[in-house]
Amino acid sequence: MKEPLFLVDSLQYNNWSEDIFRQMREGGVTAVHVTVCYHEDFRETVENIIKWNGYFERFPEMIMPAKNAEDIRVAKRDGRTAIIFGCQNCSPIEDDIGLVEVLHQLGIRFMQLSYNNQSLLATGCYESDDPGITRMGKQVIREMNRVGLVVDMSHSAERSTLEAIELSKRPIAITHANPSTWHPALRNKSEKVLKALAESGGMLGFSLYPHHLKDSSDCTLESFCEMIASTAEFMGVQHLGFGSDLCQDQPDSVVEWMRNGSWTRETDFGEGSKNAAGFPEQPEWFRDNRGFSKILDGLCRVGFSEEEVRRIAGLNWLSFIERSFGEESCH
Amino acid sequence: MKEPLFLVDSLQYNNWSEDIFRQMREGGVTAVHVTVCYHEDFRETVENIIKWNGYFERFPEMIMPAKNAEDIRVAKRDGRTAIIFGCQNCSPIEDDIGLVEVLHQLGIRFMQLSYNNQSLLATGCYESDDPGITRMGKQVIREMNRVGLVVDMSHSAERSTLEAIELSKRPIAITHANPSTWHPALRNKSEKVLKALAESGGMLGFSLYPHHLKDSSDCTLESFCEMIASTAEFMGVQHLGFGSDLCQDQPDSVVEWMRNGSWTRETDFGEGSKNAAGFPEQPEWFRDNRGFSKILDGLCRVGFSEEEVRRIAGLNWLSFIERSFGEESCH
Repeated sequence: MKEPLFLVDSLQYNNWSEDIFRQMREGGVTAVHVTVCYHEDFRETVENIIKWNGYFERFPEMIMPAKNAEDIRVAKRDGRTAIIFGCQNCSPIEDDIGLVEVLHQLGIRFMQLSYNNQSLLATGCYESDDPGITRMGKQVIREMNRVGLVVDMSHSAERSTLEAIELSKRPIAITHANPSTWHPALRNKSEKVLKALAESGGMLGFSLYPHHLKDSSDCTLESFCEMIASTAEFMGVQHLGFGSDLCQDQPDSVVEWMRNGSWTRETDFGEGSKNAAGFPEQPEWFRDNRGFSKILDGLCRVGFSEEEVRRIAGLNWLSFIERSFGEESCH
Repeated sequence: MKEPLFLVDSLQYNNWSEDIFRQMREGGVTAVHVTVCYHEDFRETVENIIKWNGYFERFPEMIMPAKNAEDIRVAKRDGRTAIIFGCQNCSPIEDDIGLVEVLHQLGIRFMQLSYNNQSLLATGCYESDDPGITRMGKQVIREMNRVGLVVDMSHSAERSTLEAIELSKRPIAITHANPSTWHPALRNKSEKVLKALAESGGMLGFSLYPHHLKDSSDCTLESFCEMIASTAEFMGVQHLGFGSDLCQDQPDSVVEWMRNGSWTRETDFGEGSKNAAGFPEQPEWFRDNRGFSKILDGLCRVGFSEEEVRRIAGLNWLSFIERSFGEESCH
């Protein structure tokens, strides 16, 4: 493929290290949306940002912070990977809507309205009932629209997600999930949600987390690429990208913490089970950031044109970011 | 005087309102360094920033946030007042050096190492002994130098101030104080400090707070301007600017809080006294932001050239800001 290929991954939560940053470069990854909060409150999220400031200082030749599309272009030009911050939960805004703008000032560009459970804003995909976006949720969506913080509904429940798409004046994202018609996980999304997402100009990032894949760790590259092709048929290629959900080098204690935070005294196994409580093994064709090229080849084989592959690889995300990270231009 | 006149005030802590913003415009004030922290911890300082975000949203025709000299030029061009954030104490970094960069990311550009009392970093001017910059203080100065957060020693004690000037690789500021030879207040600075400040390329902002003025509220404009002229003789005009310390429309409870925070169970009267515990009255020639023009005229009368008055009015601060608010360029 001809250069420059913009390769964007809209979700990773690795146990960050020089090795992983080097693999990003080897894999030609232009930009990654990294998680800086699962359950953390504002102050704890700031500690995670401080940790990232340390990475930026130590590895300036490999990574740089990105707050807009231009930063991503700079990273591409310099041969670095642009790092975009995001939160998988609304816990860092606590009960204070003013913190939405502060998060944006600190460089955060995606925020999920809920993570598996009910939040102050929306319902998570593991709740049995979904009353939709809350009163505060409506206010926060409006504020996120204003400042340019993207609403992400990856871990939210169906009704809340449909309402978020409807309420948000700017397109939203489902940064990491797959269609539930392909693999019926609670975290995957119905065609109804995905169609509404596409119609509103939103983006879907395809997940490579085994629990979101048909046949889990044994999912074939062909099956994954065919799923993308069939999703393109009802969503349109322009709304698709990657959101690998890569959690490389993390100990199993981390997935336990993701699921349980400090909200339960029983153990919640989420998408796992008592006998398989840890991180599942990645499919052999996507173990780390160097695996994207195989997927791009796979997409060519299932019939996507070179131009379409470029879009899915990163140009769609780049274009979405171009429109989404700045202040609202008109009302 | 010919336009454009850059008018910069390096310290105000008003009870902010639409009226005061309008007076800033009427007074032709280009930029103001406003205090967003006296005793607040990090989280409370963020609340103050949220309050300012609200002002920027409500009064975009009069004020705008400024993070660098270019923003100040934009404000000048647009007929708005640029607002620069600063902290009068190091309390918002708590005991966490990583918060220095986070404060900078949030737009804070000045930070005092201590406010009247001993801090984790330096000694305040009301302590009886001054052991100088602490171990953590040395680390924090280095970090402030790195990210472009200006060390401000306005409320610090003599030895700590001299050491800060020496230790800091980048010029520091005393944003609001006067020479103690003119008026021997604890908050005013010795010639030794002011000479060291000037030799290192630092800036002094002349205070208009009555407790820092000879004859307090009865200080004459002529006396104030003559003091500036005599300071220029031993510091050089290029190191001088304004730092009015204007606390307009504040109730007396605020000065009580400034002095006492939550650190004492007795009442500390600071520069005041039991019988005069509140805010002192401003001299009649400087009641609010519209008073600067009188001072500029006064400076002409004591012999400053038009070019020198322009420098003191704002060009010196602008040049200092140009060199001080960005990342350190070389080591």
